[in-house]
Amino acid sequence: MKPVVLLGFWGSPFGQRCKIALAEKGVEYEYREENIWGNKSPLLLESNPVYKKIPVLIHDGKPVCESRIIIQYIDEVWPHRAPLLPADPYARAQARFWADFVDKKVRPPYADASHEFDSSPLRITTHPLTLGFVYQFHDCGTRLWQLNGDAQAAAKEELIENLELLEGELGDKKYFGGDAFGFVDIALVPFVSWFYTFENCAGFSIEETAPKVVAWGKRCMERESVANALSDPHKIYETVGVFKKTFGIE
Amino acid sequence: MKPVVLLGFWGSPFGQRCKIALAEKGVEYEYREENIWGNKSPLLLESNPVYKKIPVLIHDGKPVCESRIIIQYIDEVWPHRAPLLPADPYARAQARFWADFVDKKVRPPYADASHEFDSSPLRITTHPLTLGFVYQFHDCGTRLWQLNGDAQAAAKEELIENLELLEGELGDKKYFGGDAFGFVDIALVPFVSWFYTFENCAGFSIEETAPKVVAWGKRCMERESVANALSDPHKIYETVGVFKKTFGIE
Repeated sequence: MKPVVLLGFWGSPFGQRCKIALAEKGVEYEYREENIWGNKSPLLLESNPVYKKIPVLIHDGKPVCESRIIIQYIDEVWPHRAPLLPADPYARAQARFWADFVDKKVRPPYADASHEFDSSPLRITTHPLTLGFVYQFHDCGTRLWQLNGDAQAAAKEELIENLELLEGELGDKKYFGGDAFGFVDIALVPFVSWFYTFENCAGFSIEETAPKVVAWGKRCMERESVANALSDPHKIYETVGVFKKTFGIE
Repeated sequence: MKPVVLLGFWGSPFGQRCKIALAEKGVEYEYREENIWGNKSPLLLESNPVYKKIPVLIHDGKPVCESRIIIQYIDEVWPHRAPLLPADPYARAQARFWADFVDKKVRPPYADASHEFDSSPLRITTHPLTLGFVYQFHDCGTRLWQLNGDAQAAAKEELIENLELLEGELGDKKYFGGDAFGFVDIALVPFVSWFYTFENCAGFSIEETAPKVVAWGKRCMERESVANALSDPHKIYETVGVFKKTFGIE
């Protein structure tokens, strides 16, 4: 085993965050793809006994879990190259606030904010945000809301509101923290691959809602660290399409 | 206005965290109680436009929101006294993991992990964890689950499981981080005031489940910072009783 190992899953925005952070720091590591829909590896179960979820970073045999915690760990262990959090305490607090906002507000219509990617048995439940039935992967949860009627309208409205907040926070800056690519960018950018799916499922234009965020996403994609980590938007859309068909969501 | 102002609410564990951190650091500040059930102050609405929730720490006119972010900010701005996070990156990651665990796993049966204390209109919804109807304060949410039948059993079982995990993590250490009182202690200790309510509502003994955690709670209460910040357990139980009566939960 290499000194640094990352347990991930190709489609997980949370695993992608870790890949980007490691690449920005130039840290060599071994990537191990987990079969999160089937049998999880004994290494994953041992390394994250509390949540049993990816991503997990294993450094010198010691596991670190939860993507935002992993990014901060990477920043603290390899501080000399590409600082991901700013030095000033107030700027750090702002970066933490917006990265946290991404997990609370950009994910909820699609994924449960309190959990990272998982694969426990599917069940149907009610999503308090969408006020409609959603398909949820138990204790996880990748949620695809029922894409019609009031539920869709509510989810879309909320997404637009949150994109507008991010648009306001980004403003005319190059990256969320200013001139340097950093924590908030890493937290948000994996979701850029989902924009195509969001737009196609809910029928609206993210570029019209948040043109600066879309331009920022393109800027981020020019970085090798990001381009190498992100999922193909069409593959995501296809996968979502398969789920929708399988579970009878029209 | 003093250079440091804390906007809080007496019963909020999240506001209490900030009080404890400021007291540990010996920072003088002005405390302003918010009427979260009625009209929020213009200062709160301006300082936390995204969530409109307490706690907010205003330092030299600049607001910091979200209790765990506030504690880290306090630790970084006043680093020379009573470090709250350890210096070692791995120990810091572990502290962040367990403080995050408290918000994800100790709160959920009672409060939505994705939000801090709020007071928007009451509504009834379904809690995916308890699988029963719960009373939720919209977008917030302090949830009191239906304290009978399967819903109660599920919530209780989950709470016991999570207390056991905390008991294991604490082990024979004085505090969660070792000999020094710190981040995880601050995140968890306000919930010690709720133990009496949990025990009385669900009919079980936390001391039997997690004796080390209970002893740790008593040790924490010997600190002036904690004793001055926490709510009276009987006052919490009474308040919960009023809610239960008001909303017809038996």
